Amino acid sequence: MTPETAPDGAPWEALPPPLSDLHEAAARLRGVALETPLLESERLNARLGGRVLVKAEGLQHTGSFKLRGAWNYLAQLPRARAAGGLVALSSGNHGQAVAWAGRRLGLGPVVVLMPRDTPRAKVERTRFWGAGVEFYDRQTVDRAALLGHWTSQRGYHLVPAYDDRRVIAGAGTLALEAMAQAAGQGAVPDLLVVACSGGGLSAGCALALQGGKTRLLAVEPPGHDDLLRSLEAGRRLTNAGNVPSICDALLAITPGALPFGIHQQHGTRAAVVTDDQARAAVFTLFAEFGLVVEPGGALPLGALLADPALVRGRTVMVIASGRHLDGSLLAEIVTRSAPPPA
Amino acid sequence: MTPETAPDGAPWEALPPPLSDLHEAAARLRGVALETPLLESERLNARLGGRVLVKAEGLQHTGSFKLRGAWNYLAQLPRARAAGGLVALSSGNHGQAVAWAGRRLGLGPVVVLMPRDTPRAKVERTRFWGAGVEFYDRQTVDRAALLGHWTSQRGYHLVPAYDDRRVIAGAGTLALEAMAQAAGQGAVPDLLVVACSGGGLSAGCALALQGGKTRLLAVEPPGHDDLLRSLEAGRRLTNAGNVPSICDALLAITPGALPFGIHQQHGTRAAVVTDDQARAAVFTLFAEFGLVVEPGGALPLGALLADPALVRGRTVMVIASGRHLDGSLLAEIVTRSAPPPA
Repeated sequence: MTPETAPDGAPWEALPPPLSDLHEAAARLRGVALETPLLESERLNARLGGRVLVKAEGLQHTGSFKLRGAWNYLAQLPRARAAGGLVALSSGNHGQAVAWAGRRLGLGPVVVLMPRDTPRAKVERTRFWGAGVEFYDRQTVDRAALLGHWTSQRGYHLVPAYDDRRVIAGAGTLALEAMAQAAGQGAVPDLLVVACSGGGLSAGCALALQGGKTRLLAVEPPGHDDLLRSLEAGRRLTNAGNVPSICDALLAITPGALPFGIHQQHGTRAAVVTDDQARAAVFTLFAEFGLVVEPGGALPLGALLADPALVRGRTVMVIASGRHLDGSLLAEIVTRSAPPPA
Repeated sequence: MTPETAPDGAPWEALPPPLSDLHEAAARLRGVALETPLLESERLNARLGGRVLVKAEGLQHTGSFKLRGAWNYLAQLPRARAAGGLVALSSGNHGQAVAWAGRRLGLGPVVVLMPRDTPRAKVERTRFWGAGVEFYDRQTVDRAALLGHWTSQRGYHLVPAYDDRRVIAGAGTLALEAMAQAAGQGAVPDLLVVACSGGGLSAGCALALQGGKTRLLAVEPPGHDDLLRSLEAGRRLTNAGNVPSICDALLAITPGALPFGIHQQHGTRAAVVTDDQARAAVFTLFAEFGLVVEPGGALPLGALLADPALVRGRTVMVIASGRHLDGSLLAEIVTRSAPPPA
């Protein structure tokens, strides 16, 4: 059972999960989440002068890693707390994951609150899993008020997207799994690169890597570099949130409190990677791997394409964390004739 | 060691491999070929009213199943026979596989003879694996004379693309692997659908399925239905070879002798699937699976999209056998707004 508070009085949910929580989450996800492949391209390795391992998590059910956290959260949620319905605030992937997990666990109804500019592919799929979708305007919404309406007034239970120990532990199973696969392929990565929005996945990765030699680099789009700036400032800063990016999944305006604390504790580094580098990575994942990866999910590989020094003579693992992008954007990228940077 | 003739005097190469050859090939391929994932989409299942399992073999090294046969052939080839070099006649995927396997086994040089209309992606990659590429005209070439030049006059050893027991046994490992994965997912397919050109993969599948309940359907593009017509006629017929198709990997003009004999013996059925259905399948593999699959590799799924009765209430496995298509064609397909057929 889940205790509601920790011994020191801090809410249990707000405490960093110990590594054992990640292993318990992995057990909970067995037979539910796919073990997605860890892929390698000799051509890309030759181009970058090192070894690049791509965790193809876009092949996961619902098309992203978000399933892991949503499942680990909902599978532990007392039924009575879900009785009034579930609500999620999501740029798309978390919403699909909550809808999918909620349906499979027999919970519901599920409502997903999405920015109006969410790619159509994500909206359609969220509805397919049985959730209702309500749109809001990314620039003008008061998120707290919107959530208050659904939780306090309508009695829905909020399923957190990243700022929760169960969600972080679930996301961290991705890194546990990928590191084990790498070991099976004779590799211990020097570096793991992962995209960061609210920070659930990157914090889960930090926890999974603790005690090992693999360093963590979290990447963000320009103007959405709240983690980078917050780590430098030593406190959580907020983005203006008005800089456009094709990385629609990476536009959280401030780091989650729990993920940020984990990143501070574990010495995570952060870097900014541009949309052009995300495009180059989407192209490379198509051309060298046969994978469809959304821009935000491709951003970690974009970091390597932009700076091959990160790879040269080393082994670097990147997480391709989601696959949903509209066909028009994929078409635009795969018909580019320009070679990718570097 | 490989005996050069069978007890009855027929060339050893021309005999159907027993099932034990497939298992030996699988052992030979361990640590060389990837175990590619077997994927499923609940959305596609709901749309077709049954269960569709997609063997994502485009994620294989070199991007297609051809690696399996080329490796199983070359790993058994006495070094002395490869000393003068290796030559392959290929629409692209076999050539890449021979180049890759030859390099990894330390054989060489490798020359690949390719039709002039081979997608650029396949040509570039064949060269990357260290092979020389020589082009010929698909409509006017005298293939026998071209091969004679390289083998008799220049002393190269021809690596067969499909009409050989080692190549067929290697290809058959794909079906062995996929059937084992399906069993692990609680499924015994009623039907396995595979694309057919010369017939190496489809014949390998027929051998892998023998004695089980899973039936085999081999699919071909219109005008390239030599297997269908040959099975009806009871003898090998030849296509005019002048009907255009986007399925560049499926344009062999007549069934290989050994594959055809295997298909006759095992009661393989064949069907024609159009380019439009291949396009619809490429789209579906992008949208529902996050996979890039070339038209010929998508053709088996095209058969299901065109005729959902093949799936309704049943479990059907399709092999997505290769991933190489030019970005311009992928772009054209993923921006189609029309819904797929059926």
